[in-house]
Amino acid sequence: MTIENTDPDLVFHPLKKIEIIVKGDKKQFVADLLDRAGAKGYTLVRDVAGMGEHGFHEGRLLFNDQASLVMFMAVASDDTIRRVAAGLKPLFEKNTGVMFISDAKVVRLEHFLKKEQAQG
Amino acid sequence: MTIENTDPDLVFHPLKKIEIIVKGDKKQFVADLLDRAGAKGYTLVRDVAGMGEHGFHEGRLLFNDQASLVMFMAVASDDTIRRVAAGLKPLFEKNTGVMFISDAKVVRLEHFLKKEQAQG
Amino acid sequence: MTIENTDPDLVFHPLKKIEIIVKGDKKQFVADLLDRAGAKGYTLVRDVAGMGEHGFHEGRLLFNDQASLVMFMAVASDDTIRRVAAGLKPLFEKNTGVMFISDAKVVRLEHFLKKEQAQG
Repeated sequence: MTIENTDPDLVFHPLKKIEIIVKGDKKQFVADLLDRAGAKGYTLVRDVAGMGEHGFHEGRLLFNDQASLVMFMAVASDDTIRRVAAGLKPLFEKNTGVMFISDAKVVRLEHFLKKEQAQG
Repeated sequence: MTIENTDPDLVFHPLKKIEIIVKGDKKQFVADLLDRAGAKGYTLVRDVAGMGEHGFHEGRLLFNDQASLVMFMAVASDDTIRRVAAGLKPLFEKNTGVMFISDAKVVRLEHFLKKEQAQG
Repeated sequence: MTIENTDPDLVFHPLKKIEIIVKGDKKQFVADLLDRAGAKGYTLVRDVAGMGEHGFHEGRLLFNDQASLVMFMAVASDDTIRRVAAGLKPLFEKNTGVMFISDAKVVRLEHFLKKEQAQG
């Protein structure tokens, strides 16, 4: 990413973005996990539907047609995102859900990192 | 992307993410295309609005003010995403809509690839 | 990103994607900013909630619990995205809100760039 900045205040800091899509009844679990893992906030998109296989039942694929889901978006350090991913793994072994990780840049680093990380 | 993993089960696999924004009445077309192209699932965000030019009419730009749209998100292999993009091209030549492609990482590769791809 | 194309019409052009999350009452400000900065359109996701600290009040963190927010998504040139980021900075100094910038690819460059940019 090459966004040139002549304004020294407009620096783009690299972080990781995670998008997590889970059933509505797992919302609190994910919110707590993000908090414990060190994320300083999140965005929640409601009224999300999903389609995908979520396991086998008597040899047939069950499809999860348009289930009511929520999508979390959070941006944080690599360490925080890794902790979130590790915490979601057992959830996803038994429940519908996916997560995507990507690179993102932010302007105000202190809004996404705990105080000690932003200074370090 | 450098997420270090000491947990060998927590590997981040690189895939492509596609976001597709179309009018609500094109929802089934896109869902079928994703399926045929090899995507194993998708997330659908409803209650999406869009603003953009969608053609010229008698020399004036027509704006598509706050039309009712849906947004699809899907993560899949390069080949699948390329097939989706090729399949959307004729739609976008006549209709409102956009698609964005980006890099994303996932933990559970088998949730995003058809069986032969995940093994290959 | 290595999406191989044998179809010469299916070229993936690199641009920047910006996601902006603000309170609903700042919607018009952001829409106008995107327009002035050179974005040719945007996608708006309504019914978005957010959780995060948004300032100190008498030494205590205030949390913005589930406020009603909107999320803008726009894809444009580096220059446009930098102008949008610069224009949002004063807003974010006083108000709840975040923005993320990431790399994205599009097929139809002319849908995202002003005429002179697409030709240049």
